[in-house]
Amino acid sequence: MEWLENHQPGFPPFLRGPYPSMYLAQPWTLRQYAGFSTAEASNAFYKKNLLAGQKGLSVAFDLPTHRGYDSDHPRVQGDVGKAGVAIDSVEDMKILFNDIPLDKISVSMTMNGAVIPIMAFFIVAAEEQGVEVSKLSGTIQNDILKEYLVRNTYIYPPQHSMRIIGDIFSYTSHNMPKFNSISISGYHIHEAGAPAALELAYTLADGIEYVKTGLKVGLALDDFAPRLSFFWGIGMTWLTEIAKIRAGRVLWALLMKENFGATNPKSLMLRAHCQTSGYSLTAQQPLNNIARTALEALSAVLGGTQSLHTNSYDEALALPTEYSASIARETQLYLQNKSGITQAIDPLGGSEVLEKQTQDLIAEAYSIIKDIEAKGGMTKYISSGMPKLKIEEAASQKQALIDKGIKKIVGININTEGDNSTPIEVLSIDNKEVLQNQIARLQHLKANRNEENVKIALSKIEAAANNESINLLEMAVNAARVRATLGEISAAIEKIFGRHQVSVRSLMGVYAKHIAMDDNFMKAKELCNNFAKNNGRRPRILVAKLGQDGHDRGARLIASAFSDIGFDVDIAPLFQTPEEVAQQAVDNDVDIIGISSLAAAHDTLIPQLINHLKDKRRSDCLVILGGVVPPSDYEKMYNAGVAGIYGPGTILSIAAQEILLKLEES
Amino acid sequence: MEWLENHQPGFPPFLRGPYPSMYLAQPWTLRQYAGFSTAEASNAFYKKNLLAGQKGLSVAFDLPTHRGYDSDHPRVQGDVGKAGVAIDSVEDMKILFNDIPLDKISVSMTMNGAVIPIMAFFIVAAEEQGVEVSKLSGTIQNDILKEYLVRNTYIYPPQHSMRIIGDIFSYTSHNMPKFNSISISGYHIHEAGAPAALELAYTLADGIEYVKTGLKVGLALDDFAPRLSFFWGIGMTWLTEIAKIRAGRVLWALLMKENFGATNPKSLMLRAHCQTSGYSLTAQQPLNNIARTALEALSAVLGGTQSLHTNSYDEALALPTEYSASIARETQLYLQNKSGITQAIDPLGGSEVLEKQTQDLIAEAYSIIKDIEAKGGMTKYISSGMPKLKIEEAASQKQALIDKGIKKIVGININTEGDNSTPIEVLSIDNKEVLQNQIARLQHLKANRNEENVKIALSKIEAAANNESINLLEMAVNAARVRATLGEISAAIEKIFGRHQVSVRSLMGVYAKHIAMDDNFMKAKELCNNFAKNNGRRPRILVAKLGQDGHDRGARLIASAFSDIGFDVDIAPLFQTPEEVAQQAVDNDVDIIGISSLAAAHDTLIPQLINHLKDKRRSDCLVILGGVVPPSDYEKMYNAGVAGIYGPGTILSIAAQEILLKLEES
Repeated sequence: MEWLENHQPGFPPFLRGPYPSMYLAQPWTLRQYAGFSTAEASNAFYKKNLLAGQKGLSVAFDLPTHRGYDSDHPRVQGDVGKAGVAIDSVEDMKILFNDIPLDKISVSMTMNGAVIPIMAFFIVAAEEQGVEVSKLSGTIQNDILKEYLVRNTYIYPPQHSMRIIGDIFSYTSHNMPKFNSISISGYHIHEAGAPAALELAYTLADGIEYVKTGLKVGLALDDFAPRLSFFWGIGMTWLTEIAKIRAGRVLWALLMKENFGATNPKSLMLRAHCQTSGYSLTAQQPLNNIARTALEALSAVLGGTQSLHTNSYDEALALPTEYSASIARETQLYLQNKSGITQAIDPLGGSEVLEKQTQDLIAEAYSIIKDIEAKGGMTKYISSGMPKLKIEEAASQKQALIDKGIKKIVGININTEGDNSTPIEVLSIDNKEVLQNQIARLQHLKANRNEENVKIALSKIEAAANNESINLLEMAVNAARVRATLGEISAAIEKIFGRHQVSVRSLMGVYAKHIAMDDNFMKAKELCNNFAKNNGRRPRILVAKLGQDGHDRGARLIASAFSDIGFDVDIAPLFQTPEEVAQQAVDNDVDIIGISSLAAAHDTLIPQLINHLKDKRRSDCLVILGGVVPPSDYEKMYNAGVAGIYGPGTILSIAAQEILLKLEES
Repeated sequence: MEWLENHQPGFPPFLRGPYPSMYLAQPWTLRQYAGFSTAEASNAFYKKNLLAGQKGLSVAFDLPTHRGYDSDHPRVQGDVGKAGVAIDSVEDMKILFNDIPLDKISVSMTMNGAVIPIMAFFIVAAEEQGVEVSKLSGTIQNDILKEYLVRNTYIYPPQHSMRIIGDIFSYTSHNMPKFNSISISGYHIHEAGAPAALELAYTLADGIEYVKTGLKVGLALDDFAPRLSFFWGIGMTWLTEIAKIRAGRVLWALLMKENFGATNPKSLMLRAHCQTSGYSLTAQQPLNNIARTALEALSAVLGGTQSLHTNSYDEALALPTEYSASIARETQLYLQNKSGITQAIDPLGGSEVLEKQTQDLIAEAYSIIKDIEAKGGMTKYISSGMPKLKIEEAASQKQALIDKGIKKIVGININTEGDNSTPIEVLSIDNKEVLQNQIARLQHLKANRNEENVKIALSKIEAAANNESINLLEMAVNAARVRATLGEISAAIEKIFGRHQVSVRSLMGVYAKHIAMDDNFMKAKELCNNFAKNNGRRPRILVAKLGQDGHDRGARLIASAFSDIGFDVDIAPLFQTPEEVAQQAVDNDVDIIGISSLAAAHDTLIPQLINHLKDKRRSDCLVILGGVVPPSDYEKMYNAGVAGIYGPGTILSIAAQEILLKLEES
């Protein structure tokens, strides 16, 4: 198509940027994703950041909020206020934005599962601040398809979740013209291990599904397509990441035109937020992460991002501290103010290598998307389980090459001699205090509201869930006004929609294939065979996550590598309590439980797990902990009875040997 | 010229890189500049670095060595072993390379003033290691012209220094075919404040002088031109720095062809070492320097450098620690192993913006060079003082824009709210111990050598200095064999050549012009006028450096800004002892002495200065300290009587106000 050859920035297909003057007119928005413990603490943090040059907010919610549970729900104790802020009602939301004028500051909210109550609280909080809903600007993530694919913070089954998205599109297109109704996210697909072409293809294919959803609820394309936004993860392969951002724009314009006949440039335009890769951070020599993040940030900017989050150097160890967050923010300020990059539009445009990589990525992703379309679209394809396996396959292959030493990472398989013990301070959240605080506020809320009004509002939500012609968000806004809680609104919907359950499948053979005759792999296999000889059965491990933490790349990698090494591997379903996992260990008679924790709840949940094992007379079962664990927590974890801790950067074949030796000892 | 349009890497004019396969075949050499205290300590440090992935050595000598003084010379006490390693004789040099096979590891030596004894020691150390001189590889900086221009570690007057360079070219072209006989350095010109076109023009114009020197001593062009190498400073303006490296290659090929009729591609080829900018580092929030350095390193690599030094994050505060040096090194390893950049040749080639910037820089620098040539060449131009003033003008203008807040630097004039007090550990050198060690070794050397042989060898050096047909380096090698010291060899040459003295001139009006009606500038002027009204004369400041530290950008900036503010400014000559500076303060009846220290000798020299003021009954004279001062030294300095300390990143107009208020108080 001839228009594909238009390479002027600001004109479709937007190869060189969505806007004609790009950063000359205005640099990208510095938007750091943050949130922790209570609404009060997060509010104070936001205000400080806004004073320090940040231009927009980006709210991280805690996992119970994501999964539709109030803080007082018995399943979620360990997760309250940990990996984000706890929001139980509009009262919490009002505190979160206290003294932050919602008609002026744009707010991005990473919420997918409990998107209905959270949007409702946001709208009512603004209303009670005196801000008209039409003046709200910002973005709701609202990208449920990638949750089924990789991130797992869904609540309801897919078809019902798509209904919710339709309702949000409909509500926002009528009432919130400045608000991005979805942020279609490649980030989590990237972090789960997808190479650039897969990240592009799956994300844009998700995008096509959302456009269909908007059309299905009767919206005119140009009424909602301009409010769709995208979100990329920016990894270490410097040029490829620049090419990816540029390729994404061209592909989206092409797909919108081809599939939906869009002609309005605003409907053809892909606007993106980017975040540097969390996966690329190492727990070893954390200050190296500053350089990694700076180079990734540069890729995002040279690709022409509209806003950017830069990770903090300590995030492979813990949640960022105020200090580490300031260094991350200042990397962006440096790029905006000193690097001179904002003085050129698409500074690398024309580079032969970059343009070729861009065209190659366009072709590769386009062909994957066409294939998905031929299979009936992304929703259907996701339910086949295939895309998840493809991502896991890529992740397993990468891990095998790292473990083998072919892919080199400083501090992990090269230059491991250095001083890894930099005494950096890490943030620790006192979860108990947050929990008490939230429970007290919930009690106060419930004691002071009109229960009758709440009941009516909740029953109207149930009715809306049963009737597609009533907008769920509209009903939730009413419920938020009368102080229904997040858990209550979510439960009312769940009554009709049900809660989504997934079957757990594991990938086999990929790790073994790529690591091949590697010494450590062979040694681990041999130890495994010896164990089988001596004990009459293979070593048996239960790989599990605890609580509401759905980031399962690590857990699935371990399951697949350990299975290739020769372990009998059971994978626990997601979102189990410590007691449920202990029971499963007993039922399956495993020798080892491997817990992967990325959401900082290990300090509460691991001691509970070990106590439950004791109660069930299985203290002999080894408990191994992996994931993001601050070194300052190691002693506490060992004292609680953990047999080994493996942080980001662990070579799996070596870890397996250690675990087998521990098993022989015990 | 048609050949200028050849854009194939590895072919003249080398726009896209000096080699056809660039990093595909071999990545750039990771070469970190380092050296401190004793030869033993530096040797241990080098060996550790070589084990950690560094491929070549780069030796930093201390300032007494640079200036041709043995460690026991009374003028140099405070500087011994501070900003580099102390080398007094071949015995020190042998320790420096103990267990480092000089036929395998290439050695870069930053030495200009005392280049004859240092080269002699290097050759004899290799000889006594059993390594033939012909097998030595590496680089000697040997670029004296830029010393007169900016760095000031010269010893002899210019014409005699050029004679020395001729002797080194001659010696190395006959005996050391793998050794780069000069590293023509833009780095220090860059650090002194020159914009890219000036850095290119002055450096390449210096290069032309060196080629003339080689021809003058009778060498055939193609016998020495291929061993000339270059050295760029890489600053913050990301694309410009990439363009600069590329432009430099094209310009050199053009000049070699035009001026000298070179046709051998090896004589047309510019090979470069790069170092990230020390000037771009801030003492505030030092971890931000990791991101700055990473982005500068990326520029160097995308420009196609042959080797690279990355600065450590703490170098605005002190000499790097082992830990900070490891982070700097690993930034390079990351770029080599994870960024994918080594997988493309000239990855940005073809970028419209970059190619235009490259061509613009070529045109601008070429026109400056032609102008210098028309004026009789760079040596003559330097002695006119013009290029130094042009660099200072650019530096003053830049400082005025920073002080005014127009040029933004994170931690200095924006985002100054953050936590600046990161407790980072800095390196401190126990200068007294080093000094004793060196003096003892000198005594031992002198007690055990044949004095008669030494006398003969030194008299032969004198004779050679008087007779251009005898090679000075050859004579110095003989002297080194019989254990003549660096100070003795240097003094023998100095007897004939003399020591270079410069007149001090100061730049006026540039700071005032660019800062214009800035509030802080106006406030400082007003305070200054008030002082004049109350005291019948303007406040008088002596701006001085102590000891052998010749980095005078800071001192000259302060002199010019303070003079524009309304101070009476005296500038002390370089290389004064504390007593000499105190005497000058008394003679000129100044109110304030402003000392700029960049070479870590303040801890010895400042207390001496204050004691001398006391002895001369001028304790009322305020002593102000600026430059690189570790926060851990602040207390000691204040206790010694320093009235104020101003690190890198000081806004001069604010500092002036503070100093004037202190003056009124006292």
